[in-house]
Amino acid sequence: MQEKLQTPVIIVNFKTYSEATGRNAVELAKKAEKVSNETKVSIIVAPQFADISAVAEAVKIPVFAQHIDSIRPGSYTGHVLADSVKEAGAKGTLINHSEKQLKLSEIDEIIGITREKGLASVVCANNPNISVAAAALKPDIIAIEPPELIGTGIPVSKAKPEVVTNTIKRVREVNPKVTILCGAGISHGEDVAVALKLGTQGVLVASGVVKAKDPYKILREFAEATKT
Amino acid sequence: MQEKLQTPVIIVNFKTYSEATGRNAVELAKKAEKVSNETKVSIIVAPQFADISAVAEAVKIPVFAQHIDSIRPGSYTGHVLADSVKEAGAKGTLINHSEKQLKLSEIDEIIGITREKGLASVVCANNPNISVAAAALKPDIIAIEPPELIGTGIPVSKAKPEVVTNTIKRVREVNPKVTILCGAGISHGEDVAVALKLGTQGVLVASGVVKAKDPYKILREFAEATKT
Amino acid sequence: MQEKLQTPVIIVNFKTYSEATGRNAVELAKKAEKVSNETKVSIIVAPQFADISAVAEAVKIPVFAQHIDSIRPGSYTGHVLADSVKEAGAKGTLINHSEKQLKLSEIDEIIGITREKGLASVVCANNPNISVAAAALKPDIIAIEPPELIGTGIPVSKAKPEVVTNTIKRVREVNPKVTILCGAGISHGEDVAVALKLGTQGVLVASGVVKAKDPYKILREFAEATKT
Amino acid sequence: MQEKLQTPVIIVNFKTYSEATGRNAVELAKKAEKVSNETKVSIIVAPQFADISAVAEAVKIPVFAQHIDSIRPGSYTGHVLADSVKEAGAKGTLINHSEKQLKLSEIDEIIGITREKGLASVVCANNPNISVAAAALKPDIIAIEPPELIGTGIPVSKAKPEVVTNTIKRVREVNPKVTILCGAGISHGEDVAVALKLGTQGVLVASGVVKAKDPYKILREFAEATKT
Repeated sequence: MQEKLQTPVIIVNFKTYSEATGRNAVELAKKAEKVSNETKVSIIVAPQFADISAVAEAVKIPVFAQHIDSIRPGSYTGHVLADSVKEAGAKGTLINHSEKQLKLSEIDEIIGITREKGLASVVCANNPNISVAAAALKPDIIAIEPPELIGTGIPVSKAKPEVVTNTIKRVREVNPKVTILCGAGISHGEDVAVALKLGTQGVLVASGVVKAKDPYKILREFAEATKT
Repeated sequence: MQEKLQTPVIIVNFKTYSEATGRNAVELAKKAEKVSNETKVSIIVAPQFADISAVAEAVKIPVFAQHIDSIRPGSYTGHVLADSVKEAGAKGTLINHSEKQLKLSEIDEIIGITREKGLASVVCANNPNISVAAAALKPDIIAIEPPELIGTGIPVSKAKPEVVTNTIKRVREVNPKVTILCGAGISHGEDVAVALKLGTQGVLVASGVVKAKDPYKILREFAEATKT
Repeated sequence: MQEKLQTPVIIVNFKTYSEATGRNAVELAKKAEKVSNETKVSIIVAPQFADISAVAEAVKIPVFAQHIDSIRPGSYTGHVLADSVKEAGAKGTLINHSEKQLKLSEIDEIIGITREKGLASVVCANNPNISVAAAALKPDIIAIEPPELIGTGIPVSKAKPEVVTNTIKRVREVNPKVTILCGAGISHGEDVAVALKLGTQGVLVASGVVKAKDPYKILREFAEATKT
Repeated sequence: MQEKLQTPVIIVNFKTYSEATGRNAVELAKKAEKVSNETKVSIIVAPQFADISAVAEAVKIPVFAQHIDSIRPGSYTGHVLADSVKEAGAKGTLINHSEKQLKLSEIDEIIGITREKGLASVVCANNPNISVAAAALKPDIIAIEPPELIGTGIPVSKAKPEVVTNTIKRVREVNPKVTILCGAGISHGEDVAVALKLGTQGVLVASGVVKAKDPYKILREFAEATKT
């Protein structure tokens, strides 16, 4: 990312939830922006590809893609080009989410592309070994998300605090500068506070916000929790 | 597609070419719309996911996606949801392009999803056998594109006319209603005219238009050729 | 396959079950051969790649691979070459099993390779549309296996008899010669008898035999049932 | 691997070359064994799955698989189970060869499986970043193979010596114990000698041996070169 990322940060992954598709994506992004403005906490939203431009026009907080392909401009029907999401307004991208896992060489190539294009790179990783491997590829951000906790409401920071601390320690040996987030199961402000206390610089959330009865309220709770 | 597709039809696949990304996608789509308005020939444009909404706002001709995934709303980070491209303005989608080949079962599922959502389905096929197989899955349109000719400037309708006629005959036995297009290597109006004379109802083009010095001029030539 | 396939036929897919790996694969194949010899019913076994040669040396009934890749000899580390499984003793191969689904174009290419090499081709299909599509590619055998029934003990021939009869009817319109099997959930002799009465020429079985307490006994029951 | 790997080591990847399929695989393995016996240099052969048992019966040098899947025993038709290649005689496996690239999480899982099963793990890597990432996953061996040199006859150790030395240095920071090989383009004894001088503990070769007019002679040359 061209500007430095402000931490702590909350990234909201919209996935392909109905509650975050099309007009709903724009509405949800506006709520995230409102919380960010009110709390001065950095919040990033990651809508679907086809929603990036509408979301980026509607809000001033950073918009990330959920994925890009390891391609350059050319004959790649149906692929996701970095230039395309960037021109639509994206400032970065998730890479290797557990629902969109990539080959090791693709992750490396995509990080190279993001660097060239001035996009922020957030590589998702499932366990300490994979986090260290991902950190060796020099992305801007790593997000630790044990897939068995995704969508469960059990926060990684509580269920597996040792995963978080162990990972931070080992990642720092390989890459002292990378920003480290944790995700999976974050559903209360307290989970966010614990995640930061364990040494992360933010969280990657999805259903906990997108599928909440009142996404504004829960996101506000998360943002406030980063200050405790 | 909810309305009946008007034939002959020219589908312009924007791929991930720089000349058809972002603002360039909108400009190119406007040229296609101009040709369609002037000639009354049906033209469809297929830009990248992130460009669908801007293109669909800028033009009145139909906009198709280049691909959608075989998913329903849910936890599918980085995937392409039918609802998302539809809400962005897409009226249909390419499926199984030779640059984005899919599993047989995925093609079947995606066609089912397009039918539910009122989107037109264009299944790309490489040879007669595969075209018959694709036709058995009951899409709206089949596009025959031998991959060895893509981007060569040698039109399938000339290099392999027997591929086209053979395919049409066999496809009709399995599926009398499907619209049949041909693609790959179409670069002159004459190629389009030959394709129609062989019995197809239109063409799927990409580099021949997108990378032309004057895309308006060549597309106009293609459109006029459908009338000869 | 060079010799004509004798029907009715029972194909036993060993999958990667422990009960059918290594020496266990050889033992199980010998039981299948015993049943085939005693009942004069055609039985084919499909062990893992690394077990093909030992099984083919141990028994005289046909041995099939569970998959081959769409490749010719060359630089394809870690792939499965038709020539390799053939020289090890395989007489045919499963293709596109629901646990090893393939791209449409790969299925087409693999069928072409089996034809060249004199191997029998068994394409697995999940539903009537896909079965018709598969039949259009001209394999020797089609096996209809709704994935939601695999391993459940509920036979497709009972739970969804209309799937079987509908498929047979539609497949015959496209390909009058293909051998049609059904699979998924076959666990009693009666299931086999029903499958044949519905018009199939055999069954594809796996856990019903491999994980049975007495594989010989159940396979014998299946074989006898083909005669009723 | 249960016994310690003796270095320097030469691993010969048979790929899916005709010259190394079936009986040819056994013949080639015997030549490798002869060289190993005569020179006392450690040589490992990696034939196709279906050839593992015949090769392992014919020779006493270690036999490796070219790939295994990230699966446990179960319903995985057409997959490659660690137990299966082990029972056939394999003592280890290549992982993530540039012709069989894997997801980051799969590499991690497969290494875990090899450890459980007492199999040696050789992770292939294309560049320094990827080598460091792979080393973080704690395999037994890493093989550095820039894909642009594979099969060219231009040895990585000469064309890109800095790739090798840079990689060794960075890998050692993350994993001081891993054995490091280099591959791609090795075709003369001198290439092997240079590779060892640069600090590797052996080479991974394929076409340079398999497609040589006299594989015995070239392999003997390679083996002698490890002593210079």
